[in-house]
Amino acid sequence: MAEGSRGRRRLVVIGGDAAGMSAASQARRLDPDLEIVALEKGRWTSYSACGIPYLVGGDVATLEDLVARDPQTFRTQHNIDARTLHEAVSIDVDAKKVEVRDHEHGGRTYSLGYDVLHIATGATPTRPKLEGIDSGAIHGVQTLEDAADLLHHAEHLGDGCKVVVVGGGYIGLEMAEAFVKRGAHTTVITRTAQPLGMFDPDMGALIADAMRAEGVDLHTGTSATGFEKGKVHTNNGTLDADLVVLGLGVGPNSKLAVDAGIEVGERDGIIVDRRQLTSAPDVYSAGDCCLAFHRLTGEQVYVALGTVANKMGRTAGTNIGGGYATFPGVIGTAVTKLCKLECARTGVNEKEARAAGFEFKSVTIESTTRAGYFPGAAPIKVKMLAEKRSGRVLGAQILGQEGAAKRIDVVATAITADFTVEEMTALDLSYAPPFSPVWDPVLIASRKLAESL
Amino acid sequence: MAEGSRGRRRLVVIGGDAAGMSAASQARRLDPDLEIVALEKGRWTSYSACGIPYLVGGDVATLEDLVARDPQTFRTQHNIDARTLHEAVSIDVDAKKVEVRDHEHGGRTYSLGYDVLHIATGATPTRPKLEGIDSGAIHGVQTLEDAADLLHHAEHLGDGCKVVVVGGGYIGLEMAEAFVKRGAHTTVITRTAQPLGMFDPDMGALIADAMRAEGVDLHTGTSATGFEKGKVHTNNGTLDADLVVLGLGVGPNSKLAVDAGIEVGERDGIIVDRRQLTSAPDVYSAGDCCLAFHRLTGEQVYVALGTVANKMGRTAGTNIGGGYATFPGVIGTAVTKLCKLECARTGVNEKEARAAGFEFKSVTIESTTRAGYFPGAAPIKVKMLAEKRSGRVLGAQILGQEGAAKRIDVVATAITADFTVEEMTALDLSYAPPFSPVWDPVLIASRKLAESL
Repeated sequence: MAEGSRGRRRLVVIGGDAAGMSAASQARRLDPDLEIVALEKGRWTSYSACGIPYLVGGDVATLEDLVARDPQTFRTQHNIDARTLHEAVSIDVDAKKVEVRDHEHGGRTYSLGYDVLHIATGATPTRPKLEGIDSGAIHGVQTLEDAADLLHHAEHLGDGCKVVVVGGGYIGLEMAEAFVKRGAHTTVITRTAQPLGMFDPDMGALIADAMRAEGVDLHTGTSATGFEKGKVHTNNGTLDADLVVLGLGVGPNSKLAVDAGIEVGERDGIIVDRRQLTSAPDVYSAGDCCLAFHRLTGEQVYVALGTVANKMGRTAGTNIGGGYATFPGVIGTAVTKLCKLECARTGVNEKEARAAGFEFKSVTIESTTRAGYFPGAAPIKVKMLAEKRSGRVLGAQILGQEGAAKRIDVVATAITADFTVEEMTALDLSYAPPFSPVWDPVLIASRKLAESL
Repeated sequence: MAEGSRGRRRLVVIGGDAAGMSAASQARRLDPDLEIVALEKGRWTSYSACGIPYLVGGDVATLEDLVARDPQTFRTQHNIDARTLHEAVSIDVDAKKVEVRDHEHGGRTYSLGYDVLHIATGATPTRPKLEGIDSGAIHGVQTLEDAADLLHHAEHLGDGCKVVVVGGGYIGLEMAEAFVKRGAHTTVITRTAQPLGMFDPDMGALIADAMRAEGVDLHTGTSATGFEKGKVHTNNGTLDADLVVLGLGVGPNSKLAVDAGIEVGERDGIIVDRRQLTSAPDVYSAGDCCLAFHRLTGEQVYVALGTVANKMGRTAGTNIGGGYATFPGVIGTAVTKLCKLECARTGVNEKEARAAGFEFKSVTIESTTRAGYFPGAAPIKVKMLAEKRSGRVLGAQILGQEGAAKRIDVVATAITADFTVEEMTALDLSYAPPFSPVWDPVLIASRKLAESL
């Protein structure tokens, strides 16, 4: 069966999450006449994968809370033909059509022609090729299907239940916290010397301390070497595991694009231009399946984050809808909350700065989130990097309690403005005792760094 | 008696609070040989006037908590001869000397020569010339003497005690909240249609609602016309008042400078150059007695804020100590917390934009402080102004609950960078469910505003 002949211009979107549906919605806003078909192989559209750890930990009540808009809403309110359980299985960029498998109706396949295609196939959790990895008992944290599965386990943990999280990235640590909250004995193994490798090791050590203080059994310098039922084998011995969660990060889910001959780069991330157009005519792409360019290093990087996916999707949608928009690139901003510790970063860390060829100075300062005498004033640590000679701010990392992390946005804005740390000291930031010391911690760091140059 | 002849270069600082002591400390850092004498007419040095409402309200335990450094610390750790209860009564800029009254020793006076003078005499609360204003029962909120006095009253409020706050500025509203917390029936009168005139009336109306919801009896469009024991007369009738607090703002305490022939501008604020030098040779000034230049409007403005005083003081101190520093100006950033409502602003509001000759567009958006589904997600409202044609961001006002206000710093940084609202939409701000929706409220406002231009 084919849905090929038609009068109106047709956009086909592959992938019903942030990057796909934000493009579809934006294209609809600009072009009311466009026919829009969105294919999603799972059951849900537009959900918050970032919220999964909080669902599993019990902060968020139901799985449905993570769904921003369901297929019905897209159909009725946005005139978008959102087809869940419909999986794109191949793309023919010359014939401009997509082969689709309809899992709702016994796996029948059909061919769907497009005038414009938008690929938003997202990411897949990294699964090292180890014995036993595909047993089905090793859980990724990506889709709402994963979420439902993990939530079921979390709600039915037996006494003395043991959870092993393989990998010390954001999701790994957030999942570890979730299972500690549920009362499980939770172990995180990470091959690096410190968890959260996007932070410098000196900051990572503090994150490790905080995780351990909350009851996470953290094994650094430890890699999984294989899995069997109830066990995780590592280079440092074998761990008992009633449940294994993968927290090794994600990679681009770009196989469809690769098979269609669309150009990909590092890690098979889809390469797009400033308007999110791929190497194939009339084929756009956005989100976790794509690469993004880094404003500071000038390189193509892989950043799988909801904010980036939304912005890229919106950019693609504007161009698809006949408007003009470019994606401005990323500067490596990220934030997470681990137990009570807020962790934020932007720009480059020391390792990234060296890799990009920057010479730099860095300082780390300690201050408080509010005026020292004000109730709730909590410690905050700010590390900041500036380029030698130019004095340009290159990056920052912030660790602290309630109210600490969002200050990273000031540094992100300053980096976007190409400010020197000296220029940063001139910022007229807000002050009142419930919010900040007189010199905001970000300003203290800028000042110390400017003095050291 | 004179302390005139000497070998070392001598800095005399008039005023022992933020602007004075930060200059003294910074000068000391750069020049270990400088003789530094700091004159303070009151009993305390380096205290947080911004903290007084929180002391009176009981959030801060003791008056001493508000003192950052006492005179003894300055003497022993910084080699600064900090003389409390010593009041500068006149300056002779030609002879380069200050006449000082020593209140500790029976009011004897002496003459103190200087090589460099730094005037940091701060602000005095605005006292309208009304009958009864000088009865001694009408309390300003400025010095720690005021604080001690108000705290004593707050701790000894009788049943059904009535407090009237005259003026609806920051300090007025913060003091009203403090007395409500102490159980007093508290009335605020303000002549404007809404309190907190630094916010546009549409935002001010929400502040008024919040104050009323917390039990403050707010009378707008109401001015005091006179005072007598136990009563405040207004254009809208007479109010009973066991205690009257002035919250009409402050003005420069610049009489010493005016009398010495030093150039002053609007409201008698001392005029300084970029290095904080006044019109008199070797006389610097900083803080609430000075004017500051506004980066957006290009005008000399009066901004009595602790941050500004500290930065100006540090700038003066660097120059006095032989270094080089310029004060970068202000952009009108301010923040306060009124009951649970966080209120922040930066740049210009609509009235200020018109006064400066700007044509502009504005939008107001509503969002949440965290991902909508995340526990503790609270409403936040962002109003943003951009210049017509250029699209340059001119200002923003934020109202919301916990976590809302500090986002103003992103806009303050963007204004300093001369960003357009379109450029703001490109900012790579941090996102995770406990901190923000996927599109930070500041980005939503930028986007809507960019679309409206």
